[in-house]
Amino acid sequence: MLSIEPEKANRLVNGGPVMILSCRREARVNMMAVSWLSWISTCPPLLGVSISPSCFSHDIIRETGDFVLNVPDAEMIPTVHQVGTTTGRTIDKMRVFDLVTVWGRTVKALTLSYAIGVLECQVTDFRKIGDHTFFIAKVLYAAVDETAWEDGHWSESAGLVYYLGGDKYLTGGRIVRPKVKTDYLTLRQAMHQRRQETLDLFDDAVPPPLT
Amino acid sequence: MLSIEPEKANRLVNGGPVMILSCRREARVNMMAVSWLSWISTCPPLLGVSISPSCFSHDIIRETGDFVLNVPDAEMIPTVHQVGTTTGRTIDKMRVFDLVTVWGRTVKALTLSYAIGVLECQVTDFRKIGDHTFFIAKVLYAAVDETAWEDGHWSESAGLVYYLGGDKYLTGGRIVRPKVKTDYLTLRQAMHQRRQETLDLFDDAVPPPLT
Repeated sequence: MLSIEPEKANRLVNGGPVMILSCRREARVNMMAVSWLSWISTCPPLLGVSISPSCFSHDIIRETGDFVLNVPDAEMIPTVHQVGTTTGRTIDKMRVFDLVTVWGRTVKALTLSYAIGVLECQVTDFRKIGDHTFFIAKVLYAAVDETAWEDGHWSESAGLVYYLGGDKYLTGGRIVRPKVKTDYLTLRQAMHQRRQETLDLFDDAVPPPLT
Repeated sequence: MLSIEPEKANRLVNGGPVMILSCRREARVNMMAVSWLSWISTCPPLLGVSISPSCFSHDIIRETGDFVLNVPDAEMIPTVHQVGTTTGRTIDKMRVFDLVTVWGRTVKALTLSYAIGVLECQVTDFRKIGDHTFFIAKVLYAAVDETAWEDGHWSESAGLVYYLGGDKYLTGGRIVRPKVKTDYLTLRQAMHQRRQETLDLFDDAVPPPLT
């Protein structure tokens, strides 16, 4: 056996399926990748998620008290890695990564429209544990893509994605390492280019000022 | 999208790799399957695990304040399912399932000798959340099987096992449903038969009384 420093032993635990957490403060929507989460209680249905206070989403969740957990499939690994390696403080991830959302049913946070599963969560408690904040939340509404669900559980073909650490994701028994751009200059240029393409579709429209 | 009752939405979250938790109160060792666990903090290295107060291990952990998390590979799925569907109150799982252990390095709990990873954990806090107790524990020592580890992360060939609920386990992109005996009469008979076989190896020995 190879001994591992306790500080790096999280790589033995990794997480359940990695998820994209979405939250919203008025017009500002943000998404981040989370894998430090666990189901906690059956009745009431509670789960816990550990989030660093340095995350942009941390303060939004503290203020608004709700979030959505979106379950990605293998096709969404690049999106997971992009939202997981950038911060909403510097860029608007919704615009840069072209994320499409729909309204949540029971929460202010938005749902990622191509997720294969969603859990709408209301924070019931939170506390600082070590260097993270552990949010305990009640699941108010949950739904799955019928094609990814069989006999009350995820199906083999659902393409669940597990995070191993670094840029390694495990899906279908294979490790996938997405190649994505994460430097902010490139991302901001991409954001402006996409915006310009959208404006070109409506060439009669008065372009709103660039941000 | 198919809506799911919040009380059953844990099946969307399931867990990280399912683990076998071992604990010990003097000569009595017990093991249970856990998948409601999450890493929580980097520094100090903390994780959390949610355990029902009805579990035999619950009170042992409360009293002794430590446990070991053992990471199984695909070959150990029957063992995971067996220790996960029986209670240590009725049978001695170590005997019935022929589990081999070695001493922990830093804790009283024992380590499962054929696990591909171990995390020795000391409870730092616990609290009742919903219908479960959430134990927060510091990782004191961690180790992995070198053949299952590559470049600081689990390797593709490690054969990590994820729990989907019911009798469904996901490994290598396939769902496995172990066929194991879980009725107590059969298990106790198996326990006595295995014991007799052991005694037959030492036919000069005075047999200790059957329990």
